[in-house]
Amino acid sequence: MSTLVLLRHGESVWNAEGLFTGWVDVNLSEKGEEEARKGGRLLLDAGVRPDVVHTSLLKRAIRTANLALDEADLNWLPIRRSWRLNERHYGALQGKDKAQTRAEFGDEQFMTWRRSYDTPPPPLADDNEFSQVGDRRYADLPPELMPRTECLADVVDRMLPYWYDSIVPDLAAGRTVLVAAHGNSLRALVKHLDGIDDDTIAGLNIPTGIPLLYELNDDFTPRKTGGEYLDPEAAKQAIEAVKNQGKK
Amino acid sequence: MSTLVLLRHGESVWNAEGLFTGWVDVNLSEKGEEEARKGGRLLLDAGVRPDVVHTSLLKRAIRTANLALDEADLNWLPIRRSWRLNERHYGALQGKDKAQTRAEFGDEQFMTWRRSYDTPPPPLADDNEFSQVGDRRYADLPPELMPRTECLADVVDRMLPYWYDSIVPDLAAGRTVLVAAHGNSLRALVKHLDGIDDDTIAGLNIPTGIPLLYELNDDFTPRKTGGEYLDPEAAKQAIEAVKNQGKK
Repeated sequence: MSTLVLLRHGESVWNAEGLFTGWVDVNLSEKGEEEARKGGRLLLDAGVRPDVVHTSLLKRAIRTANLALDEADLNWLPIRRSWRLNERHYGALQGKDKAQTRAEFGDEQFMTWRRSYDTPPPPLADDNEFSQVGDRRYADLPPELMPRTECLADVVDRMLPYWYDSIVPDLAAGRTVLVAAHGNSLRALVKHLDGIDDDTIAGLNIPTGIPLLYELNDDFTPRKTGGEYLDPEAAKQAIEAVKNQGKK
Repeated sequence: MSTLVLLRHGESVWNAEGLFTGWVDVNLSEKGEEEARKGGRLLLDAGVRPDVVHTSLLKRAIRTANLALDEADLNWLPIRRSWRLNERHYGALQGKDKAQTRAEFGDEQFMTWRRSYDTPPPPLADDNEFSQVGDRRYADLPPELMPRTECLADVVDRMLPYWYDSIVPDLAAGRTVLVAAHGNSLRALVKHLDGIDDDTIAGLNIPTGIPLLYELNDDFTPRKTGGEYLDPEAAKQAIEAVKNQGKK
């Protein structure tokens, strides 16, 4: 048996401003920093002590991990990072205002881009100011791996090799693993863990800053489908709040 | 040719209070946090961009690296940590007031403990409140490797394997390497790099928070003995201030 803890980064500056972010390297807002620290306190209070940490290459996940680990007095833990844990690349929507996009393209197109499993937004041009082509942190990615847009199916495809090759070996060695990442890279992982089908995953939201704990069997399947939030009441409220967003 | 950047952590809470720290995991003071951020800005302004970062297992070095990298927009870099980069273990002096120790044991004994190359302070008892025996972060160290006290010669001995096995391969691969560590682990490294003899090293001080840059030849010897501080004027003043401390 092993333990996996998922932590979605706190609010970013662009979350607060209602812009599509994706691979744009936006910082946490002050609220997001506080969410990260609270995530660390939840780990500490629950006595959950990771042995190793995995993050994406984006600072909102990296700083969430750093702040949570500072708070839990665990910032000495080994940390590994991969682009494979990055947020979904939002293509041509990156940097665009969500409400404006919705008004411009209509509800149906908007919801397809946001929630369809296999329809990516239009690709982002390499010379767009919000493109990551040429960013030094992706220098190790050959051009054919560098995304210009992604749907959730694409995220599952590029995330799973990291799960199998880097996270599972840590779990197999008996380590408790913390993954600090993003709404969609974590949804991709939860889809895999809980065996959620392509349609149902659209309705799944992971709240920010609340550690989600999975106890795993020896074959790395969850002992309890859906895992367990370290603050279940706050998680429930956050999930309800997201559901109600569309109803305004 | 490759580039090595050494960064000594900023002021810790115990530095400010005049206590011997060693392996006790004391946090940065607010001043120390600001020094770390300034170190990051110096990297940024000088256009020095590390490819990989090495830290000790102590939070004052870890947080110095994190804050400097946040500031330089480089917190996505791979980070590796090792106990071999830790501060010198101060033995039975850990947690003791420096001025009180000096008054109790006399100037000569005090200076021997602080500056002699090969005389360690008395060992720290395992049941002392400031002992690190049993600390989870050192769980991988077999008992015979876990120090109870160290002189600088001991630090050189335990630091060099990390230099040869972990840092040199990064340099050999052409990477610019940042090492965020401590007064004595960095003095040990500088002693090795610059070929400083056992007596002369006593007079060498490395200021906090100012990156010290070494351009290295293909055989990992410095192109310029002593390297170059990214803020030479501030480094000079800080070194003078330390020299004058004894004269009060």
